[in-house]
Amino acid sequence: MYPALRKHFAELADLTDAEYERIVSCFKEKRFKKHAIILHQGDPVNHEYFVLKGLLKTFLVDNNGKEHILQFSMENWWVSDYQAMHTGAPSSFIIQCLEDVELLYMSYDDRKRLCDEIHQYERFCRLKVTSGFISMQNRVMALLKNDAQSRYQQLLHQYPTLFQRVPKAMIAAYLGVSRETLSRLQV
Amino acid sequence: MYPALRKHFAELADLTDAEYERIVSCFKEKRFKKHAIILHQGDPVNHEYFVLKGLLKTFLVDNNGKEHILQFSMENWWVSDYQAMHTGAPSSFIIQCLEDVELLYMSYDDRKRLCDEIHQYERFCRLKVTSGFISMQNRVMALLKNDAQSRYQQLLHQYPTLFQRVPKAMIAAYLGVSRETLSRLQV
Repeated sequence: MYPALRKHFAELADLTDAEYERIVSCFKEKRFKKHAIILHQGDPVNHEYFVLKGLLKTFLVDNNGKEHILQFSMENWWVSDYQAMHTGAPSSFIIQCLEDVELLYMSYDDRKRLCDEIHQYERFCRLKVTSGFISMQNRVMALLKNDAQSRYQQLLHQYPTLFQRVPKAMIAAYLGVSRETLSRLQV
Repeated sequence: MYPALRKHFAELADLTDAEYERIVSCFKEKRFKKHAIILHQGDPVNHEYFVLKGLLKTFLVDNNGKEHILQFSMENWWVSDYQAMHTGAPSSFIIQCLEDVELLYMSYDDRKRLCDEIHQYERFCRLKVTSGFISMQNRVMALLKNDAQSRYQQLLHQYPTLFQRVPKAMIAAYLGVSRETLSRLQV
C-alpha cells in the first residue's frame, strides 16, 4: 500500500515489511478540495499530514492583515504546526489547500507510540526533522544576507515547479518581499 | 561525570547509567581561549560540540565583508555546522569563542553509532533537533513579519543574559538589522 510512502521511508530508514504495515495502519486518508482549510489558527494540533497529491500553504495573517507564508507543501512532504503539536499549544498557523489535495494523516499519539515501538521509525523522524532544521537554517541565512533577487533565484532553482503552481503574490509572502519588489525583479 | 550533561539528557530521554556511561565515553573535553576559532569556513565537519562553559557564535562573512550570525551558543547548547556534518560538505560557517570556552565534543561517527546502539539516544537527538527546527521556524517568521524593534524585544525576552555577554554590533548581525537601526531602537 502507498508505494510512494514505502519508498519515502526507505530513503532514510530500514523498515521490515511488518514494521511498514504497522506504520501504515496508523494512517488515514482524506481528500480536500482546493481552498479548503485543514487547520485553523487556534485549533488544537493532534495530527501530522503527509501529502500524496496536491499543494498546501502554511501561513499566518499579521495584525495589519498581511499574509506571511512559512511553507509550501507538495507531494511527499509532511505538514503540521510542529511547535503546537509538540507543546500542546493551539495552532499559530493556518494550513490551506492551494489545489485539490490527497493526504495521509496520523495522530500525534500514534506517532509517539511508533517512535517507542520501532527504533527505525524514530530514525526516520530524526533524519526528517534534521532536513527541516537545515532547510530553515538556510532560509534564515538567506533572509539575513541575500537580497530579494537572490532569494527569488534560490527558490526558483530549488523548486522550479512551484512557480507554475503558485501565484506570484504568494511567492512574495514566502520570500518576505513586497509584491511590488517582486514584480520589479528580473524573473 | 558531567552532572549538567546527565541532567540535560534526562530532560528528553530515559538513559540507564550504563547507557549514559557509554555515551560519555565518546566525548572528549577541550578548552579554548576567547577569540579562538574552533571551526573555519571550508573545514570538514566531523564533530558536534556541547558547551560546558562560555559562549560562541556561528557566523559567516558575505562577499561585501558583512558578518551574519546564525547562532549564539551558551552553556548546555549544542553547536556544529549540521548541514556540513550531515552531508559531508565543507563548513559554510565559522564557529568562534566569544569568551573562554569549555567544550565536550563527539565525532559524527560516534554519534551515528550511539544512535544505532541506544534507541533513547536517537530519541534525544530527535527531540533536540525538533527544538532547533521549531526555533528556526520562529526565527523565519520573525524575520518575515516583525520589525527590528519587535525582533529585538523578542530576543531580549528569550535570552536576557545574552545582552550582558554580547556586543550590540553582534546582536544586530543576528537580528538582520543595521547597527544604526539598532542604536535608534528604544532598548
